[in-house]
Amino acid sequence: MQQFHGGHRSPEMERCIQNCEDCHHICIETMSHCLNMGGKHAEAAHIRLLHDCIQICHTSADFMLRNSDMHGLTCSVCAEICTRCADDCERLDPGDQQMKACAEMCRRCAETCREMSMMKM
Amino acid sequence: MQQFHGGHRSPEMERCIQNCEDCHHICIETMSHCLNMGGKHAEAAHIRLLHDCIQICHTSADFMLRNSDMHGLTCSVCAEICTRCADDCERLDPGDQQMKACAEMCRRCAETCREMSMMKM
Amino acid sequence: MQQFHGGHRSPEMERCIQNCEDCHHICIETMSHCLNMGGKHAEAAHIRLLHDCIQICHTSADFMLRNSDMHGLTCSVCAEICTRCADDCERLDPGDQQMKACAEMCRRCAETCREMSMMKM
Amino acid sequence: MQQFHGGHRSPEMERCIQNCEDCHHICIETMSHCLNMGGKHAEAAHIRLLHDCIQICHTSADFMLRNSDMHGLTCSVCAEICTRCADDCERLDPGDQQMKACAEMCRRCAETCREMSMMKM
Repeated sequence: MQQFHGGHRSPEMERCIQNCEDCHHICIETMSHCLNMGGKHAEAAHIRLLHDCIQICHTSADFMLRNSDMHGLTCSVCAEICTRCADDCERLDPGDQQMKACAEMCRRCAETCREMSMMKM
Repeated sequence: MQQFHGGHRSPEMERCIQNCEDCHHICIETMSHCLNMGGKHAEAAHIRLLHDCIQICHTSADFMLRNSDMHGLTCSVCAEICTRCADDCERLDPGDQQMKACAEMCRRCAETCREMSMMKM
Repeated sequence: MQQFHGGHRSPEMERCIQNCEDCHHICIETMSHCLNMGGKHAEAAHIRLLHDCIQICHTSADFMLRNSDMHGLTCSVCAEICTRCADDCERLDPGDQQMKACAEMCRRCAETCREMSMMKM
Repeated sequence: MQQFHGGHRSPEMERCIQNCEDCHHICIETMSHCLNMGGKHAEAAHIRLLHDCIQICHTSADFMLRNSDMHGLTCSVCAEICTRCADDCERLDPGDQQMKACAEMCRRCAETCREMSMMKM
């Protein structure tokens, strides 16, 4: 969708928006996967952290999409929560392919969000 | 992101999710664009309709991403609102490139959402 | 918060907004409660339905709060999902106080949403 | 709705949740009001800031409602954005009753969110 923004955004922000959207996407799928698996995958703290990550990635993407002056703040929180979510996915079951893919996406999102937050604050 | 869903979704649903995500994306950008333009572009009813479209596309995508049994209902409402939003973009300023791209995306999203809603209901 | 709407809304809509907000509120708490309980309370289909209810109640409330012409559509879907969520809470554990309170709130919300959807469509 | 949380939350958090919910509520109404007024009330930066406030209040409330460990982070950002939103409402038209009520609610929400963020971080 990059062609519609009107050229006002840096490539770094474009990449960060895409990562937040992709991370939102995979975290919802991972939450379903974990609930379907049950057992340790469905433990309350893990599902809650996935839920946090889903919501902050959505919020962070939206702030950038509307060119909010405040996006550095939401990116900063998003970086922190994505890192925790990646850690938790790796801790719970590093051999699970969905968890592995989710952790990698969370790390990528955290990295670009951290960059965005340092540019702004 | 299609590679992470675990193979449980039809190609039609994958396409519908992508369209809802893309429509959410462009409608936020269009809302910013219209507020920046001012005048008729920023009239209350148009901004409100874009806001409706942003929110229902997000909701509809999320329902499909978690494989909700209820996604036919949200897709049905999404199809209706996207069609209204497309009509309104075309009515307001058919020569505006952002509005034109937004209207086209809304039509595409409406079409796949309507298909999804008919499969389910 | 009714004092700030400017007097443009019917008492029925005010009550429906309040019910959607309250239902959103209790369903998030119930989702936490069910994940903490584990076992049948945390089964995937039940958590997913609570998640659906959380999201559609939020969406439905927001549509009414911005006086959207489309609120009849979101209220209609909200009524349906709240009814299913109430049924599921009662089915799973009718003796659980949180589930009981949640089911009652969902029924109340469904009733006012159904009224709103019939006024509009 | 306080009766349903199960007694696990402090009165401070209960009040903060309520303030975030009320601030979300009034900011959506104020956004509609400002778009209806047009002119300076509908300037892009003001509407965008109201939109930021709507979204972060919702996010912040939800984090607390699910007892997320991360709520200090979202409360911190919410405090900052609510303060900016209050400033902007007062700057634009201090005599407008809706703007005045909105600014007051934003200040109240900012205050309790700041308290919550300091308890946690």
